[in-house]
Amino acid sequence: MNSMSDFRIPGITIYRLGMYARSLERFLQEGRDLISSEELARACGVNPAQLRKDLSYFGQFGVRGVGYSAQTLLKSIRRILGTDREWPMVLAGVGHLGHALLSYEILTRRGFKFVAAFDVDPAKIGKVVNDIYVYAMEQLPYIVREHRVEIGVIATPCDAAQEVADSFIREGIKGIVNFAPTSIKHPPNVVVEQSDMTILFDKIAYYLLRLD
Amino acid sequence: MNSMSDFRIPGITIYRLGMYARSLERFLQEGRDLISSEELARACGVNPAQLRKDLSYFGQFGVRGVGYSAQTLLKSIRRILGTDREWPMVLAGVGHLGHALLSYEILTRRGFKFVAAFDVDPAKIGKVVNDIYVYAMEQLPYIVREHRVEIGVIATPCDAAQEVADSFIREGIKGIVNFAPTSIKHPPNVVVEQSDMTILFDKIAYYLLRLD
Repeated sequence: MNSMSDFRIPGITIYRLGMYARSLERFLQEGRDLISSEELARACGVNPAQLRKDLSYFGQFGVRGVGYSAQTLLKSIRRILGTDREWPMVLAGVGHLGHALLSYEILTRRGFKFVAAFDVDPAKIGKVVNDIYVYAMEQLPYIVREHRVEIGVIATPCDAAQEVADSFIREGIKGIVNFAPTSIKHPPNVVVEQSDMTILFDKIAYYLLRLD
Repeated sequence: MNSMSDFRIPGITIYRLGMYARSLERFLQEGRDLISSEELARACGVNPAQLRKDLSYFGQFGVRGVGYSAQTLLKSIRRILGTDREWPMVLAGVGHLGHALLSYEILTRRGFKFVAAFDVDPAKIGKVVNDIYVYAMEQLPYIVREHRVEIGVIATPCDAAQEVADSFIREGIKGIVNFAPTSIKHPPNVVVEQSDMTILFDKIAYYLLRLD
């Protein structure tokens, strides 16, 4: 277990570790193992110095002048990120986005496993989506205890997001991924990641303006 | 119109510009205007030197020792990103995720406007989602020409993503946002942003491991 001082590592470095992991997975799928830092950096849209700096927070990786073994580096990054284990999760809000998240197989493959879903709509309670049962919110305490849920995912409309987050936090959930486009108030011992799909569109706009 | 040399600016810097814009919007909503670089950087999980370096690619912003006017900086970032204008978009794949994207009002508010949706399922063709009509893929050429569509969004299953991308590119669409968890082959004069929601979960796992 690492110390709290790891919080001093910039959040964006952690985001980039995730990007490096995705890229390494793609290299491995293509049958590649030895990767130079230039190549990995380019594949992620960062510069090589940034890549080396990001990794240097966590130790010594690769061989100078040779590069990285994709497999070894991926294993190290997964250990750093904690994605070498399983994380039981619940979802609140089984609308279209919630439905899409419950069906998103790649999450399960990466160890993020929904054990239950919740909704307030009686028409949705009792349904099963991708083998995941939809419960009434009142059942949350039992499910969290039974499955030792560690991550709560919010896919409700904005006006329900804070109430759901408060319920999650009350039951001891310490990690929240919020897909509702509104910010969530939370105590400092709870980590919240805010999804913002609009940033991808901003990047596209930026590059489109400069294509001609 | 800026030159191609802007492509040398790291992609991650453009991503961060989007993050800064979101943070500045929140400060403004809270009635704040004067923001220090430390404060803005902290709100985005980057360090102040990084923020200043990112902005320095595009000019001189703020007043040393005083900070930024949130409104002025936001306006500048929007101009840099091209989000101070409207971008007509089409969506392919009206499943749950596609449905969620069509209903995602915040995209429209930021100038990204769906003008039509497409699907191959006869049961979906002819439906209207959030005032957006669902067409058969065969109608794509007419819609793209009529609405001068610049961005195509892919929310199909993985195995249809490349074919949809090829159709988009054939009709002259130069910007693609791909939500299918598979990579897309494309010519160098087309920009593709790959959505990867799993990275958010990686970040949560990282911080959860270090909470105790």
